[in-house]
Amino acid sequence: MVECRASSGPADPRFFARVGPFDAAALAEAAGADLRPPRQGSFPQEGYAGIAPLQAARARDVSFLDNRRYAHLLEHTEAGLVIVAPAFAEKVPPHSAALVTATPYLAWSRIARLFHPQSRSKAGIHPSAVVDPSAVVDPTAEVGPFVVIGAAVEVGPGCIVGSHAVVADGVRLGADCRIGAMVTLSHALVGDRVTILPGARIGQDGFGFAVGPEGFETVPQLGRVIIEHDVEIGANSTIDRGSVNDTVIGAGSRLDNLVQIGHNAQLGRCCIVVSQAGISGSTVLEDYVTVAAQAGLIGHIRIGAKARIGAQCGVMSDVERGADVIGSPAMPFREFFRNVAVLRKLAKKASGSAKDDSGKV
Amino acid sequence: MVECRASSGPADPRFFARVGPFDAAALAEAAGADLRPPRQGSFPQEGYAGIAPLQAARARDVSFLDNRRYAHLLEHTEAGLVIVAPAFAEKVPPHSAALVTATPYLAWSRIARLFHPQSRSKAGIHPSAVVDPSAVVDPTAEVGPFVVIGAAVEVGPGCIVGSHAVVADGVRLGADCRIGAMVTLSHALVGDRVTILPGARIGQDGFGFAVGPEGFETVPQLGRVIIEHDVEIGANSTIDRGSVNDTVIGAGSRLDNLVQIGHNAQLGRCCIVVSQAGISGSTVLEDYVTVAAQAGLIGHIRIGAKARIGAQCGVMSDVERGADVIGSPAMPFREFFRNVAVLRKLAKKASGSAKDDSGKV
Amino acid sequence: MVECRASSGPADPRFFARVGPFDAAALAEAAGADLRPPRQGSFPQEGYAGIAPLQAARARDVSFLDNRRYAHLLEHTEAGLVIVAPAFAEKVPPHSAALVTATPYLAWSRIARLFHPQSRSKAGIHPSAVVDPSAVVDPTAEVGPFVVIGAAVEVGPGCIVGSHAVVADGVRLGADCRIGAMVTLSHALVGDRVTILPGARIGQDGFGFAVGPEGFETVPQLGRVIIEHDVEIGANSTIDRGSVNDTVIGAGSRLDNLVQIGHNAQLGRCCIVVSQAGISGSTVLEDYVTVAAQAGLIGHIRIGAKARIGAQCGVMSDVERGADVIGSPAMPFREFFRNVAVLRKLAKKASGSAKDDSGKV
Repeated sequence: MVECRASSGPADPRFFARVGPFDAAALAEAAGADLRPPRQGSFPQEGYAGIAPLQAARARDVSFLDNRRYAHLLEHTEAGLVIVAPAFAEKVPPHSAALVTATPYLAWSRIARLFHPQSRSKAGIHPSAVVDPSAVVDPTAEVGPFVVIGAAVEVGPGCIVGSHAVVADGVRLGADCRIGAMVTLSHALVGDRVTILPGARIGQDGFGFAVGPEGFETVPQLGRVIIEHDVEIGANSTIDRGSVNDTVIGAGSRLDNLVQIGHNAQLGRCCIVVSQAGISGSTVLEDYVTVAAQAGLIGHIRIGAKARIGAQCGVMSDVERGADVIGSPAMPFREFFRNVAVLRKLAKKASGSAKDDSGKV
Repeated sequence: MVECRASSGPADPRFFARVGPFDAAALAEAAGADLRPPRQGSFPQEGYAGIAPLQAARARDVSFLDNRRYAHLLEHTEAGLVIVAPAFAEKVPPHSAALVTATPYLAWSRIARLFHPQSRSKAGIHPSAVVDPSAVVDPTAEVGPFVVIGAAVEVGPGCIVGSHAVVADGVRLGADCRIGAMVTLSHALVGDRVTILPGARIGQDGFGFAVGPEGFETVPQLGRVIIEHDVEIGANSTIDRGSVNDTVIGAGSRLDNLVQIGHNAQLGRCCIVVSQAGISGSTVLEDYVTVAAQAGLIGHIRIGAKARIGAQCGVMSDVERGADVIGSPAMPFREFFRNVAVLRKLAKKASGSAKDDSGKV
Repeated sequence: MVECRASSGPADPRFFARVGPFDAAALAEAAGADLRPPRQGSFPQEGYAGIAPLQAARARDVSFLDNRRYAHLLEHTEAGLVIVAPAFAEKVPPHSAALVTATPYLAWSRIARLFHPQSRSKAGIHPSAVVDPSAVVDPTAEVGPFVVIGAAVEVGPGCIVGSHAVVADGVRLGADCRIGAMVTLSHALVGDRVTILPGARIGQDGFGFAVGPEGFETVPQLGRVIIEHDVEIGANSTIDRGSVNDTVIGAGSRLDNLVQIGHNAQLGRCCIVVSQAGISGSTVLEDYVTVAAQAGLIGHIRIGAKARIGAQCGVMSDVERGADVIGSPAMPFREFFRNVAVLRKLAKKASGSAKDDSGKV
């Protein structure tokens, strides 16, 4: 049996390189947090060596508490340094130093990155890759085995193009993009620092056909996909290119795995689309919209800025700026849960009176 | 920042070849539409050069109005030629010619294809492809880099097999199929003019297991996948082969991205399955059934011809021919929206009387 | 037209090798079932040659009845041998022998496997594969074309690694695993007899980011994926590695196609997750949990052993051991269907009284 329940803790050296150690001051600076020394004892002489969850951390580890749900673990942690929000600062054990910050998860993220920096591109093109002579691949870019790069493609500095990825004719990748293994990219202009996880499909034909006399006729899909800076796209997600206009993923947006984006859809800045959600063609998301898992949006509607679409929500019409909706069809959160409660009550009553009527269950 | 909001219009020459120009008569013929000359001025001397949406089109562009939602754009368009339904013919600006037809979207599709014809196969097998000596690849077919073609495979004339695609032992592809990059095809017989978008998985094991004394035992999946003529299958969709019978996708059917088709399912002619919908094992769709996005059909049921299954619908039993259903569990459209309205009213009333009871909100 | 409706029966020799014939006693032993000779005539002299569904089977074929829905086919079958449950033993036609067992589907599975054994690994590494010199590939393992195997990878005896699969640095595969074409595996430890269907994505970054002053910042994902023995994972499914802890798929679990498993999720032994279902980060499934198609589980909850989550269910909180839930939000099956019935009744009544009010429909 694979040993699984006895976790080795995070950052198994089999998979993750580690740098350091770092002293408390360096960590406080990276985290942008206030450093409080341990109430008993002192900082470890040789600095902190790594990160670990509260229940596994030891004296030279950094840990963190972000989710209130796990607050009970704080009291007994052996971590030498704990990142916490001000409300929990007093609950850090006496032997632990604390990094106090209003944004513990962000601080944790930065410290974890300090110990485990992302690998950089290893400049060069694998000899098995098929690169069109008209493509321009920056000499600092890394191109993996079995990659196909088409005519007139541009690959910017610092890019990593994973094995088997296909970057079709004319596609432009900005700087420092990470294209996962087996990604397909066509008809797309991609900004800087864009990450695409394995198996995502970007730029293929949208779902367009007209009814002809002898069956469906495919409508040419003549738009593009525009992916702005700092976007991340999950594994096996699909983003169709536009039919007439472009499909646009706004800067800083984050798409999870198995997400579907239809042709001509436009996402604003910093939108979040969680796994298995789908956005139909020509629908517009303004900035900072969140679409939770498995939600579905019909085509040709507009979702106002900062709106939040709940999990499994079915959205059939425009959503106002800042609104929180859920249900299928979508309605305000409050209304949805009120409906659920009322129906439950009515059903109980109905089943109660049915019982009364019959004189038995 | 990638330039994204200032679209270049459709058919960016970076990605799309263009032919033409064409004169109005040629376009009318291709479209099967009635040509009306401009009320002011005349047809452009050098013909029409391309296509564009209403708001971007210029004097030598062809545009179209199909969705009533965008009718307000018609009045101000500068397009030299506009495809419209008869109801909008009078609203075309005086400087524009019109192509009037009962099916403007179909006409648009054909004119767009005229300017931007699909690329044809470039005959030949890429030297990196691994092709079994017993496979028969038509000399007019195109086989891309890193393709794997198994024993006894047949690839018909005019086929394009995209890079990294795997066509496993015994698979037969008819004429003029377009197999996208990284598609896997096994245990499948494929008709003519079938298009499969990147990353689709066709013919793998269905989800079948029996409960044995020591856990689940995999049941051998001994059927095939039959894909009839003119089918299109979306990116990253999955179609399992049959267990005993075959899984069948009927002629002319269109499947969108991330669709799941279970083993032994049978789709009739010209069915439509929109993205992220799932059809469970052994379920039968008669001809012309539409399954909207994210709908789910349980196994072993039958959906009558021309039935329409709404988005996110959960279908647990047979659906009659021509029925329109939605909701989970599925019910007629009318009933679903009546239920929604009634519950809303009851909930409002309940919350109103709760307020009355307590004397305050 | 592809011949499709006239099925060739199961196990088209184009795709499936066949061994045999086998006599009735051998089949009874393989199936663990009681053999009853035909009431008329005798066993076929040369043994049974293959398997077929009831309506297609002939005198030398074995068939089975498992689903009551198909019981009407039993009476007219020409199958020489039929696997049935005791309740149907008397209904087997007189010319057919019977294999009687409490678990006909399991018996069928074993007999089908007897006639059509799984192919074994063809030892050797395809010359086109890119294998890091530090990887240890067992000499009995089969490594297909265009496979990439990273540093320090271990591939156990009898494994089949399909074409284009990527097994990234440090990954360990136990014995007799079947890794489908175009699977990506990283940051993962995999047990024995694990099957992963084409295009599944295992071990990529989870969906983790913190809100920083200038947008989202990616949180390093420093956990692993642990896949225990005898797990099967469907095509194009995605399993993210843990962020701090590991993502775990318990022994014997079966995941269907297009399933999403978020970071740090833990599945117990013999869980079933049907197609297009999603399990969010840090959620725990105890042993023998079933999650039906398109269901979604929020993060950080616990599902008790043997609980069953219905299709399209939206689970927002813990589920008790053995519970059956459905609906969104999830509720007990009985309550859900009661609610549906009550709402229907209320809506009919409301529409009836609306009719009365207006005096017409």
